[in-house]
Amino acid sequence: MSKVHLVRSGLDELLAGLQEGDPVPAERDLAVRFAVARDTVRQALHELLLEGRVQRRGRGTVVAKPKLVQPLSLKSYTEGAEQMGRKPGRILVAWEEVAATADLSAGLDVGLGLPVMHLERVLLADNERIGLESTYLPLPRFARLYDTFDPETSLYAAIRATGVQFASALERIETILPTPREAGLLLTTTAMPMLHLHRRSLDSEGRPIEVVRALYRGDRVAFQTVLVDGA
Amino acid sequence: MSKVHLVRSGLDELLAGLQEGDPVPAERDLAVRFAVARDTVRQALHELLLEGRVQRRGRGTVVAKPKLVQPLSLKSYTEGAEQMGRKPGRILVAWEEVAATADLSAGLDVGLGLPVMHLERVLLADNERIGLESTYLPLPRFARLYDTFDPETSLYAAIRATGVQFASALERIETILPTPREAGLLLTTTAMPMLHLHRRSLDSEGRPIEVVRALYRGDRVAFQTVLVDGA
Repeated sequence: MSKVHLVRSGLDELLAGLQEGDPVPAERDLAVRFAVARDTVRQALHELLLEGRVQRRGRGTVVAKPKLVQPLSLKSYTEGAEQMGRKPGRILVAWEEVAATADLSAGLDVGLGLPVMHLERVLLADNERIGLESTYLPLPRFARLYDTFDPETSLYAAIRATGVQFASALERIETILPTPREAGLLLTTTAMPMLHLHRRSLDSEGRPIEVVRALYRGDRVAFQTVLVDGA
Repeated sequence: MSKVHLVRSGLDELLAGLQEGDPVPAERDLAVRFAVARDTVRQALHELLLEGRVQRRGRGTVVAKPKLVQPLSLKSYTEGAEQMGRKPGRILVAWEEVAATADLSAGLDVGLGLPVMHLERVLLADNERIGLESTYLPLPRFARLYDTFDPETSLYAAIRATGVQFASALERIETILPTPREAGLLLTTTAMPMLHLHRRSLDSEGRPIEVVRALYRGDRVAFQTVLVDGA
């Protein structure tokens, strides 16, 4: 077993005895406790940071909140966060019209190069930046959202209010490292693995509602689903 | 737009015109073509490598196969890979008995410290190492597998052959960087983000069948699911 691994086991035991928000002992103290070099402690702590077990706070390190577990469902981010007892929020980054690329044209059934609504928002849980969501909607079908929708509230609620029903979605989950821009918007680094979700939702008549590309911080979010026989 | 981003756009166009397995031009040629430093090209290629768009082959870089898209379902890895037209395979890493930790004891309904069967295998698609799967099974219930199961074949098929039916599973998807050991077994580096899947499967009487912890290379695998209203 490597030294880092030994320190990891020791830290796992130590963290098990601490509460959320409790300070983790300083690197130099941990190096003494485990009789290893400070670099070894630093590497073990870096692993725990990427896993979301600990977080930086000021110049120290504290025990992190558990990850936000998002159910894979047609529910909105808002409903998922509320189910976990977290306060959902959003910060608007962009609300614009873009020309449909080949992918968007196929995904939204909109002519190539025609305008598509693009909404980019940072997703918050208890005021912490945990995700970055880009939603593309067909125009002119959803143009009325310009008048009715407050971009710091649930988009799904606003879409449902127009009489549109979400019937199904094809969802693809990958992992990726963020670009410098994405890392900056999520207050993390380009070394933090992200869960990358691509979704295309259809209404009850099979017409496309949206194409979504969302990034979730790997240290703060997990997805969960229940599989049943025959599904 | 950053220089890396500009090169990325250029490379995306270039790759769109190439076939799987085609060589990507050398770094120095790309640097000349895009009028940027070689470091900029190297960074853009590194991003494409992490995304699984290109792969190293010998001293060069080639266009990669598309990712293996695994449906989230109670089907086995074997069935998922075959659905994609890929030849599934497995390499046995460990087949042993371990003492049930608190997590395994709760997950498998086995007394703390009692023996549990642990099976660790590298998952192959067309002979490429794409995942590392650790399965834990309760003993003595599945002890007969020692006699009947060939660890390079489908474990789910062997379990079903004992008369056990998979009825449901709770699946959790996260992302994580691999340890040096895991990266080594998957012939990649500790900088490659992994999809981390945790699964607990139950039989038709609600009894636990298995606890699984699997890592999939983020550059080679994606998960996919269809969501429907009311599910």
